[in-house]
Amino acid sequence: MKILSINAGSSSLKFSLFNMKDESVIASGIFERIGIDGSYTIKFNGEKIKEDAKLDTHVDAVNILLEKLISLKIVESLDEIEGVGHRVVQGKDIFDKSVIVDEEVMKKLESIKSFAPLHNPANMLGIEAFMKSLPHAKNTVVFDTAFHQTMNKETYLYPVPYEWYEKYGIRKYGAHGTSHRYIAETLEKKLNTNKFKLISCHIGNGASITAIKDGKCIDTSMGFTPLAGVMMGTRSGDIDPSLLPPVMEAENKDINQIINDLNKHSGILGLSGISSDMRDLTEAYNQGNERAILTMNKYARRITDYIAQYYVLLEGADNIVFTAGIGENSFIVRKLVCDNLKCLGVKIDDEKNKNCHGEALISTDNSKVKVYVIPTNEELMIARDTLELIK
Amino acid sequence: MKILSINAGSSSLKFSLFNMKDESVIASGIFERIGIDGSYTIKFNGEKIKEDAKLDTHVDAVNILLEKLISLKIVESLDEIEGVGHRVVQGKDIFDKSVIVDEEVMKKLESIKSFAPLHNPANMLGIEAFMKSLPHAKNTVVFDTAFHQTMNKETYLYPVPYEWYEKYGIRKYGAHGTSHRYIAETLEKKLNTNKFKLISCHIGNGASITAIKDGKCIDTSMGFTPLAGVMMGTRSGDIDPSLLPPVMEAENKDINQIINDLNKHSGILGLSGISSDMRDLTEAYNQGNERAILTMNKYARRITDYIAQYYVLLEGADNIVFTAGIGENSFIVRKLVCDNLKCLGVKIDDEKNKNCHGEALISTDNSKVKVYVIPTNEELMIARDTLELIK
Repeated sequence: MKILSINAGSSSLKFSLFNMKDESVIASGIFERIGIDGSYTIKFNGEKIKEDAKLDTHVDAVNILLEKLISLKIVESLDEIEGVGHRVVQGKDIFDKSVIVDEEVMKKLESIKSFAPLHNPANMLGIEAFMKSLPHAKNTVVFDTAFHQTMNKETYLYPVPYEWYEKYGIRKYGAHGTSHRYIAETLEKKLNTNKFKLISCHIGNGASITAIKDGKCIDTSMGFTPLAGVMMGTRSGDIDPSLLPPVMEAENKDINQIINDLNKHSGILGLSGISSDMRDLTEAYNQGNERAILTMNKYARRITDYIAQYYVLLEGADNIVFTAGIGENSFIVRKLVCDNLKCLGVKIDDEKNKNCHGEALISTDNSKVKVYVIPTNEELMIARDTLELIK
Repeated sequence: MKILSINAGSSSLKFSLFNMKDESVIASGIFERIGIDGSYTIKFNGEKIKEDAKLDTHVDAVNILLEKLISLKIVESLDEIEGVGHRVVQGKDIFDKSVIVDEEVMKKLESIKSFAPLHNPANMLGIEAFMKSLPHAKNTVVFDTAFHQTMNKETYLYPVPYEWYEKYGIRKYGAHGTSHRYIAETLEKKLNTNKFKLISCHIGNGASITAIKDGKCIDTSMGFTPLAGVMMGTRSGDIDPSLLPPVMEAENKDINQIINDLNKHSGILGLSGISSDMRDLTEAYNQGNERAILTMNKYARRITDYIAQYYVLLEGADNIVFTAGIGENSFIVRKLVCDNLKCLGVKIDDEKNKNCHGEALISTDNSKVKVYVIPTNEELMIARDTLELIK
């Protein structure tokens, strides 16, 4: 069975086509600048095709995608594609698992649109485009928040007026749930059990740390929005909210502008003044740049802070996993974080850490906590959920 | 030598008169509703005098205080009072220790007024009143922030645009420094060394947790303002700043109103809907009130989170101290927090915890971390600093 995994943004649409027999990727790619000038990239059979195209709407992108799947002989017939799984950023407390799309689900998605105003409407455009252009296939929705719905109330509520939760839905929802679930399930297969305590560190340009026990999310660092938690590429994470008024006054900014600063001009970029990209920061760090060293240490410390919290919350941890862009590729970040954790008995093998590729155990034999690097695969997780739902 | 310890608020002035020979309190009291209708309370010789008085300004309060010190025969002559130590909330990065007041100091205080607009101007009024009415005595200023000036840059900077630090002084300053220093010094005397790692938990209506190594502050939970860090009686602590815009929009509030909500209507009060007072919360908790249980657990968890962070930051801790209103008096909060910390080898003796009065060691003999209750005494610390400076 072939399944498409779709991640639609406001002006983009990423896809991966899986052969679910062996979970291999048949083709993947991205349609970009939808509604602007339009272009797409398709990777297939070791080749990469990049072309401009008129992409007025997401429907155009889907139609070109389906046409290319045939013309490039990626599939013989569109009927081979039996399911399309859509990533949805925000499912609120309405969705605690992936579901097949029907009218009811679309209504519910509509009702929570305002909680992810940049993402959910784009996700819905993607779904609608496939319903129109690939009517025989079943569509499913896979939520970034669903995995975190097992947090208890004490964990997901903020210490703010309780009415804000009742009236406006102000609470912790988390993010990267599909990735954290993928990590937990991958480790479960590796260890042949889900009876373990895991701190999953999804560290990319966005980053979240999740405490997982027996396969369930206990707490996660992202909150009401993905601005929360640790510092990130361009995001501040949780801060003292009282620092906003003086900056707003001095710079004559409104609340949306200052929140935009915290989302787009903070984190690694804001503190270092160099770049939001860990590779650039690492280069400057290796050259001894003072601000880069400061930023790198702060970054590792903020991740450490959350691991420490979750270690105690879980009453000890069996495993720490690093994943996503930085988690998989920056041995320096992993080293700084793990060295910070020495007093908890975390010990990594510097050579293993430096030279790891793909899945790897990087802790020493006598480390009290096992430390892994596991590449995440949200697209596959979406395809798996879709297969499970439609079969 | 007799020394006055002064804590002036915008409409109040608290005092303690110490005999520094044995650090005993000769008299103490408070002048309230200055600029409104005015009243004062003086405790002396086991008696308590409470009277109304015309208090137009802080100078009136000081004049009545000095007059009463004579008429009640608390002192024979005002010349006996050689020093007056003033608590100042915010010293920014200009003051890293207590100093004798001179013209230069007053200028500096003036220059940082806007960083504590409710407190610093009141503190200055108090100083000016004593300079006028008790001209022979030396005045000193003791800062709530000074103890935290040993934090390194990586710790005190926020991951926000670096220019906010350079232009507007946006950084972590901390608070309760005088209390944390008192705790560290008290423990130092007890242990005959300052070579220890201490997590000092000042938990009152306001609360801050401080990591201390060899007598120096390494990190503290309060930040740019005292809104930061753990949840408190009415304050939220650090949160996802992105939750502000939807509430502001729904309730048609501006940034100052919403920050006021986070300062005055959040924390224990906001989450429980019962009270900001730990005694009221405890009563409801003991009666099985669901929201009270939720709030109590959240409260203990937020304190635990910071202790966990600081345990790792300090690479292990030798001592945890609870102090201030709740820290000294709520055995339930201490128990919940310490039970949360079991995986770090923290073990308390439930009986000792329940029945402690004054200074007490409440951990068991085999606890890996010693846990103390030590009543704080900021007034004495101010008097001690003053003595040290003027002698």
